[in-house]
Amino acid sequence: MTSARITINDVAKAAGVSKGLVSLALNERRGVAPETRDRILGAARDLGWSPNPGARGLTTRRAYALGLILRRDPRTIEVDPFFPAFIAGVETVLSARGQVLVLSVAADHDAEAAAYERLSTDKRVDGFLLTDLLADDMRIRLVESLGMHAVSLGSPTADSVFPVISRDYDEGIDALMEHLISLGHREIAHVSGDEQMLHGRRRRERYEHAMREAGLVPNVIATDFSPEQGAGATKALLDGPRRPTAIVYGNDPMAVAGMGVAHERGLRLPRDLSITGLDGSQIGTYIYPSLTTLDNDPTEWGIAAATALLRLVEDGETSNVTLPPAGLVVRASTAAPSTGQH
Amino acid sequence: MTSARITINDVAKAAGVSKGLVSLALNERRGVAPETRDRILGAARDLGWSPNPGARGLTTRRAYALGLILRRDPRTIEVDPFFPAFIAGVETVLSARGQVLVLSVAADHDAEAAAYERLSTDKRVDGFLLTDLLADDMRIRLVESLGMHAVSLGSPTADSVFPVISRDYDEGIDALMEHLISLGHREIAHVSGDEQMLHGRRRRERYEHAMREAGLVPNVIATDFSPEQGAGATKALLDGPRRPTAIVYGNDPMAVAGMGVAHERGLRLPRDLSITGLDGSQIGTYIYPSLTTLDNDPTEWGIAAATALLRLVEDGETSNVTLPPAGLVVRASTAAPSTGQH
Repeated sequence: MTSARITINDVAKAAGVSKGLVSLALNERRGVAPETRDRILGAARDLGWSPNPGARGLTTRRAYALGLILRRDPRTIEVDPFFPAFIAGVETVLSARGQVLVLSVAADHDAEAAAYERLSTDKRVDGFLLTDLLADDMRIRLVESLGMHAVSLGSPTADSVFPVISRDYDEGIDALMEHLISLGHREIAHVSGDEQMLHGRRRRERYEHAMREAGLVPNVIATDFSPEQGAGATKALLDGPRRPTAIVYGNDPMAVAGMGVAHERGLRLPRDLSITGLDGSQIGTYIYPSLTTLDNDPTEWGIAAATALLRLVEDGETSNVTLPPAGLVVRASTAAPSTGQH
Repeated sequence: MTSARITINDVAKAAGVSKGLVSLALNERRGVAPETRDRILGAARDLGWSPNPGARGLTTRRAYALGLILRRDPRTIEVDPFFPAFIAGVETVLSARGQVLVLSVAADHDAEAAAYERLSTDKRVDGFLLTDLLADDMRIRLVESLGMHAVSLGSPTADSVFPVISRDYDEGIDALMEHLISLGHREIAHVSGDEQMLHGRRRRERYEHAMREAGLVPNVIATDFSPEQGAGATKALLDGPRRPTAIVYGNDPMAVAGMGVAHERGLRLPRDLSITGLDGSQIGTYIYPSLTTLDNDPTEWGIAAATALLRLVEDGETSNVTLPPAGLVVRASTAAPSTGQH
């Protein structure tokens, strides 16, 4: 199964030195003792060694890997539909080039900073993909101070030297709200996600803006983006003083969980309750009723982010990428309310 | 944000040599020219350098990373609930030890073999997690020939020198079938997954075994495990000559997609059609009706696999791990058929 190709390992064995020394000698780096260099080059010649593109990482300063460090409880990976789809996009770009993704999960701030330092110092990645951007995100300055490359998903609040991948959401949220309002909804609630994350906060702010523009009063319950808290928020809203006829969820899994709560209470969807997501994940296409949402396409984010980061690493090109605005996808989960309130 | 600690980089800059040479000199490896070594050690002393545990990968033969190479279209990562939950388990183990996961997606057999060789030759990982086991899986011999460590999820059909992580599914499938049969179902269909994968094939075989044991005739449609094909298979079954009163799906996303088809046709669930998954993913707990399934817990697989692989890498311990059998979880998606056929 393995090829008969001569590797740096074979040369190292034949010359009786470490693989690292072989790499330095073959790359004509300074500092290798002359007699050692001669022995290495002689062994390489004798064995018929030729450079192996698969061993590039050893012979150049490139790691041929990108890094993704997530600061969160590892278990939350399971319920975040953005994560696997984003990875799929990143791997679409990397696998075509024989490069890899180094993935690390850090439980807290210190572990996160240590992970960035370790992957940088060890030169295990050529750059970082910065997701889940926070307000005043410390990672921008940290990565810069480490002399590494990065791209960020979304615009950081502070200045950044790194390319930004962005997608306008405001327009889509406006269209979503206009869709609900034109159907006759007035009591439109929002189950927002984690507001420490910029995208969670920005979505909530735009919802509030659209409500006020329409002369309506916002009604928000904040969660951690998990389906469990989405279900809990749905119950609180349905039992609350301002029972909504439509609920806009901060992501699709919460919307699916909200549907479960509504079904269980015998509500007919969408007549008795209109429901929307905000992330356009796959599941929204095959549940019932199929989910009205904004088309976010995390895979496209992954492709754009990996492409921009590799362009920066390989060509030094720093250019922001603006993805097409998130568009409204109307499916079966929204309709006119059965009891109009206007 | 970054610490003021002196790194190998700093020593390399001060001594005017590469980081690799610094590492060799500081580790007293042979072959570094004496005057270069003296300059490096002098610079290190002057700067007050001390070994950094974060730079272990440079100074020892350990990569402090595990490898996961998936041979599939990257886009399928998005719809496979096993993947993110499994990663979550792996990262639970790795993040506690400051280690990382190197993830690579290969589009075909050759790219897959090249990825194993590259990560091994470059010493970028200490071992591999082998998932999606196939019949006569070539990876067992490939990884062995590369002199690397591995663990496999499930028992390979051929002999393997590597620890096997396994979970009995037969007992759970028997219990699931018994549950449906005792409710009165006779026409129980199975939407199986990709039968090139051992677990897809083994699940289908056990379903057929249980049907025959009960004197019933199996009714199987094979798919690629995707919700799209799960929905298509559901339509084919509902329109077919042997309309089932219960459908056992090879995984949960197909079951959710099947529910969508049934809802859309106005069937009342579970009265008109009982539906089960086979993977115990999170979504089954919050959709409506909540999904009867087998409790697989991919996160537990990830924890067990990473733990066993690190034990092999660090202590040379080769021991198989048997997870608790997959247990039947009865929720709201199964009930007696509205028109009994017994």
